[in-house]
Amino acid sequence: MTTLDDVLATVHERVTPMADERRRLSTAAALLTDRAEAAIDDHDLDADVLQVGSTARGTWLAGDRDIDLFVRFPPDISREELEEYGLDIGHEVLPEGHQEYAEHPYVKGEVDGFDVDCVPCYRVESASDIRSAVDRTPFHTRYLEARLDEDLAGDVRVFKRFLKGIGAYGSDLKTRGFSGYLSELLVVEYGGIVPLLEAAADWSPPVVFDPEDHGTTTFDDPLVVIDPTDPDRNVAAVCSAENVARLQHYARELFADPRLSLFFPSDRELLTATEARQRLASRETIPTAVVFETPDIVDDQLYPQLDKSLAGIESGLSTQGFGVFRSAVLVDDAGKTAVLLFELSTATLPAVERHEGPPVSVRDHATGFFEAYVDDESCVGPFLEGDRYVVERPREWTDAAAYLDSDAIFEVGLGVHVEDALTDGYELLVGSAEVAELVDTVDAGLTDYLDPRP
Amino acid sequence: MTTLDDVLATVHERVTPMADERRRLSTAAALLTDRAEAAIDDHDLDADVLQVGSTARGTWLAGDRDIDLFVRFPPDISREELEEYGLDIGHEVLPEGHQEYAEHPYVKGEVDGFDVDCVPCYRVESASDIRSAVDRTPFHTRYLEARLDEDLAGDVRVFKRFLKGIGAYGSDLKTRGFSGYLSELLVVEYGGIVPLLEAAADWSPPVVFDPEDHGTTTFDDPLVVIDPTDPDRNVAAVCSAENVARLQHYARELFADPRLSLFFPSDRELLTATEARQRLASRETIPTAVVFETPDIVDDQLYPQLDKSLAGIESGLSTQGFGVFRSAVLVDDAGKTAVLLFELSTATLPAVERHEGPPVSVRDHATGFFEAYVDDESCVGPFLEGDRYVVERPREWTDAAAYLDSDAIFEVGLGVHVEDALTDGYELLVGSAEVAELVDTVDAGLTDYLDPRP
Repeated sequence: MTTLDDVLATVHERVTPMADERRRLSTAAALLTDRAEAAIDDHDLDADVLQVGSTARGTWLAGDRDIDLFVRFPPDISREELEEYGLDIGHEVLPEGHQEYAEHPYVKGEVDGFDVDCVPCYRVESASDIRSAVDRTPFHTRYLEARLDEDLAGDVRVFKRFLKGIGAYGSDLKTRGFSGYLSELLVVEYGGIVPLLEAAADWSPPVVFDPEDHGTTTFDDPLVVIDPTDPDRNVAAVCSAENVARLQHYARELFADPRLSLFFPSDRELLTATEARQRLASRETIPTAVVFETPDIVDDQLYPQLDKSLAGIESGLSTQGFGVFRSAVLVDDAGKTAVLLFELSTATLPAVERHEGPPVSVRDHATGFFEAYVDDESCVGPFLEGDRYVVERPREWTDAAAYLDSDAIFEVGLGVHVEDALTDGYELLVGSAEVAELVDTVDAGLTDYLDPRP
Repeated sequence: MTTLDDVLATVHERVTPMADERRRLSTAAALLTDRAEAAIDDHDLDADVLQVGSTARGTWLAGDRDIDLFVRFPPDISREELEEYGLDIGHEVLPEGHQEYAEHPYVKGEVDGFDVDCVPCYRVESASDIRSAVDRTPFHTRYLEARLDEDLAGDVRVFKRFLKGIGAYGSDLKTRGFSGYLSELLVVEYGGIVPLLEAAADWSPPVVFDPEDHGTTTFDDPLVVIDPTDPDRNVAAVCSAENVARLQHYARELFADPRLSLFFPSDRELLTATEARQRLASRETIPTAVVFETPDIVDDQLYPQLDKSLAGIESGLSTQGFGVFRSAVLVDDAGKTAVLLFELSTATLPAVERHEGPPVSVRDHATGFFEAYVDDESCVGPFLEGDRYVVERPREWTDAAAYLDSDAIFEVGLGVHVEDALTDGYELLVGSAEVAELVDTVDAGLTDYLDPRP
């Protein structure tokens, strides 16, 4: 059996950038910094340049090639000026670059094979004075630079690789996992990856850290790491309970059976349409899929909207009385097709539904209810059950597919762009045979759905 | 439109016994009392005789012909002696009579067309000293005799007729309605039927009365009438929330549209098998009936056991995931055949069921759960949902009829005699066509079920 030390050493070796890669990065970063400083001089601006992120802190994984260059402006200039000057300098630093938009616009481009973001921000006194989210980043870099020696930086790389391997890396809203900054803080907090994973295997969430012992707010999250540079912020706010549990699960797996595949999992073998159909059919559920063209928005907008739409339609189905056994959002690799999959345990319902009235003792309401139904030939009752009137009236939706195929789904809470996309049209697939054909678009998602792992 | 006064006057006329009936009753009662006193003398016993119940209090309805004769023994004799002497005297009072058994044995017979119960009891100082439930009855009679004048007795008769008309009369455990004693106390409390019904139409249960202002216990019942002869007893303990609501509903009906049919409803037109089948089919539920021979026990034992068995099997169905839309106990008029009817909204379920494990953070349990399922080929998962492991495993029962047809129904809470009866065998009817055939046995029950009224 491989030992844990062997595994960690091998991972360390694989994820540590070689001297050549480091050199090329330094050269590129220096070039970019020079360009930026020259542009600042040209424009006669009171700004400075800072390299931030994992490449600045020496915690990037071999092969990752992101350089983040921040141009810091004095806080007395207006937001409009910041954006204007920021873009001017960005285009001079990256002449081939193009504009993108996060909290404010920035320029993205490429230099010597590295992906470069040139982002304007405010140079504020402390992280609690920030005027936009990116203003915080330089403080993070400064905080960690002072605490990460080469050994810890190595452990950060191994831990980040572990998180990637188990699918819990990234604070984007698709993953809701551990950000790079959070990973680094945790390694620093425990003094290395092994004590961190040993502790994580035993965590009882909520787990709270406050490295600078300056937190002022309580958070309702399973993992709370008070930002050392901002007492009001939980660095792990976006990290889901599921990803905390995932880290705990795989930490235990690593100790029980140390293996490289936890860090570098091989690609899953994807189900064929036939296999998917057989698996679906054997469950004797009624798989039902709403398929539509993915709205053209960034993932951090898209996934919350898909999640909200899934929950909205699921709640609509439940309100109508249909049982949803499991549900999932599936998106194809190209991000073009989105699927809201509902596996129903009940797809048809009686023609009648129970409608409970008020207690008979609440005279006005009770009399109103009784009179509203007593002459309604389509209803059974009113009759008494305990202290209340009850009627059985025609059910609006007796067939889940008909419900999903109707405008009724626009009455539930949907993400705004998803609602637009569904308005443009969607395809409804019902039953194992039709849903299994989704392997043509969302093969990985469907395989994960039918053979889910922690 | 008929006025309320007209209706009440007509009812009063119909339910008040004619002079001839009263005279015959007095004669019969006097004869019985003489016989009893002679028998007491013959046996040289320290006992006395008391006529109790509605015929003693003048509150019986014309045509009702029950005479209750109580023989009261001193409290120092043993229970065995009481039973022995009580039966001896009973048989001398009613030479053609036969023995029956309630809390203790008594003799039942007939004199001049009247049904006579001759019941032994203890002559205790006060109703709180009673040694068996029947000891209380003489106190009730004495209490009411002192408070019921001819007008109030007339209102009692009309109120009792109203309760019979709406199906809420009787403290037996099939009806769970208003006893005669309770009806009389309520009429006395309000000083007549009209103020009583006016008040009842506006009741907000729990409604509490304590005529003697001596109650010592609190009760959790919708209607509480502290027994004037026993501070620890709620006279209305057996009265269900449904019957309290029923009284409220029909009191309002009576004021809104005074009519004789509330007191003397005509027989319902019963559904034919064809009509029953059509009604059942139109509901698109899956009616399912467990039919068996009624156990040979008194109604006050039978109905609680049937109710318990219905609730037990319904809870078993729900636990297995089957939806029960409505359910009912049906018994044929002869009391020979009992039916537990379950109208299912879901009769079949997926082959898989969801099984939630512990939170991943509870390490020992979580690891045990994960290891129990990770290599089980019949299961999907374990996977993570939020902070927990979940597996999908084969469901034990996917078909409600198969469940009801199996020994699994003996695992739920059943009445003990019902369990015996089911062990002897039962028939399972599934679907509208089969269940509609029940009109041959439980026609009235099935009609009430399919066309229920308050």
